[in-house]
Amino acid sequence: MAVYTRVPAEEMAAFLTRFDIGALKSAKGIAEGVENSNYLIETDAGRFILTLYEKRVNASDLPFFMALIDHLADAGCPVPRAVKDRGGEVIHQLCGRPACLIEFVPGISVDRPSTAAAHSAGKAMGQMHRALADFPLERRNSLSLPDWHRLANEMGSALDDIAPGLARRVEDELAFLTENWPQDLPRSVIHADLFPDNVLLLGDNVTGIIDFYFASTDIRAYDLAVMHSAWCFDPAGDSFDADVSDALQSGYTSALELSEGERMAMSILARGAALRFLLTRAFDWLNTPADALVTRKDPLAYLKRLDFYASAAAKDIFAR
Amino acid sequence: MAVYTRVPAEEMAAFLTRFDIGALKSAKGIAEGVENSNYLIETDAGRFILTLYEKRVNASDLPFFMALIDHLADAGCPVPRAVKDRGGEVIHQLCGRPACLIEFVPGISVDRPSTAAAHSAGKAMGQMHRALADFPLERRNSLSLPDWHRLANEMGSALDDIAPGLARRVEDELAFLTENWPQDLPRSVIHADLFPDNVLLLGDNVTGIIDFYFASTDIRAYDLAVMHSAWCFDPAGDSFDADVSDALQSGYTSALELSEGERMAMSILARGAALRFLLTRAFDWLNTPADALVTRKDPLAYLKRLDFYASAAAKDIFAR
Repeated sequence: MAVYTRVPAEEMAAFLTRFDIGALKSAKGIAEGVENSNYLIETDAGRFILTLYEKRVNASDLPFFMALIDHLADAGCPVPRAVKDRGGEVIHQLCGRPACLIEFVPGISVDRPSTAAAHSAGKAMGQMHRALADFPLERRNSLSLPDWHRLANEMGSALDDIAPGLARRVEDELAFLTENWPQDLPRSVIHADLFPDNVLLLGDNVTGIIDFYFASTDIRAYDLAVMHSAWCFDPAGDSFDADVSDALQSGYTSALELSEGERMAMSILARGAALRFLLTRAFDWLNTPADALVTRKDPLAYLKRLDFYASAAAKDIFAR
Repeated sequence: MAVYTRVPAEEMAAFLTRFDIGALKSAKGIAEGVENSNYLIETDAGRFILTLYEKRVNASDLPFFMALIDHLADAGCPVPRAVKDRGGEVIHQLCGRPACLIEFVPGISVDRPSTAAAHSAGKAMGQMHRALADFPLERRNSLSLPDWHRLANEMGSALDDIAPGLARRVEDELAFLTENWPQDLPRSVIHADLFPDNVLLLGDNVTGIIDFYFASTDIRAYDLAVMHSAWCFDPAGDSFDADVSDALQSGYTSALELSEGERMAMSILARGAALRFLLTRAFDWLNTPADALVTRKDPLAYLKRLDFYASAAAKDIFAR
């Protein structure tokens, strides 16, 4: 969420001569995305995002990510493309880091999506999933069920420092999910992190789906469950918005129908999604000093979502 | 150098309805400037910088800063203006912070200025100083000679933790400067921080002078001395570039002549400028944990400049 690698203007200008995009006119380090360094730059040809990949993204995964966004853009999805240099390459080196130049798209990320925005975004995910049916590459999801076990074991009783009883709650939920996790639903590459801040909107139209750096192969409907857990609650997880939930799902199914099996599994998948973010947030919480400049996201906001998905109140939210 | 106050897109969009600039199309938190939160935003009407002022800028100083940039823009200096809302106001409140909306100007900040860039930037400072001759407001410089004494006393022998003997060196220099500081040179409002990162360039043309948040009333030629100390050395202070030094001064004097008294005082003023940044960097160095995410700037890079200005080698650099 900061600029980790400072690129001197002279080096950036020299780097950009590899591309057919004219001379550098402006460059601003921007504070967004996962732990990468991002610059919003302007050249004679327009605007671009220059990303330098820091420790959170493996350089060996970049060909997968770049092929993925290219595939989605080719299929007409609102996904900004990587720009090729004159040699046709999209992955470069700059200041000792792997670097890519991505098209800029206008649009803003909302904090509290309207039902219209949720419908559009759900539909965009459905279209993306349709487009991914013939995407040939795979990537292991390093944050799936077996990894939740690993994370929970690593933290152990330290979870109780976050909230008394949390370690036991997580253990019970893991047992339940392991017992009930669906085994034969359609799988594909999924975004796996489609929070509102990864969707750009102009009005209620999706102009950009961004930040594919968690994209990996998993149960396709799990992607919708992750999105549901991120879009349908206030950030603290205190209140569920049934209208946004309905709009998100009807948007999705307007582009891609859910099978009966997927529909039946949504509640379990949503519990899994809530647990996944509870665990990674808990891990970051326990491993980030309280006085660090990085904002620690509250893991309990996802415990509340988990509680909701496991409650009787949630019985019908995926069945309408 | 980060975004301290996060402005939700919904609040930003609502805030912008006060202005005649159309709807919000894009907003990116940018990592630049002093300790403010900055967003590069785009609306139907163009691009703007939205600044929220954090602890380093006093809200009570904002009318001075805004009048200053308006005066300079009116005089034809390349200074982006603050945008007035429909009621004519330029200082607002957003997310509990004072906030201003400033015109965006293209241009990049170089790390190692060319002689042509130094000439342009020197000339821009000369033009700015001409334009400030009839600027009626004043603001005390809180980092002038008396404050250097205060800072040095506060750090005391802790300076020796940075480099052995530094406390004594600072004490001697302060005694010398107090004895020799010029008393009757022209005074005006000055920028006081015109480092290369506060000058935007397209090619060698200055498109923007920015970050006026140290602007204050002081000896006018001291502003050129600060600029000289920032522009004419490599960042570490190891090598002096005589060509850049000449270009900077000839650029300045092409717009505004230095008096004989100013010319004679430049060497003392440059020692003062070097000491000022040595002291504030030393203070930040001693008061910033080594593992903080904020980059600590090396105070010794300015001790080297001070040594250079005090040396025989520097005898003629301001006399050519």
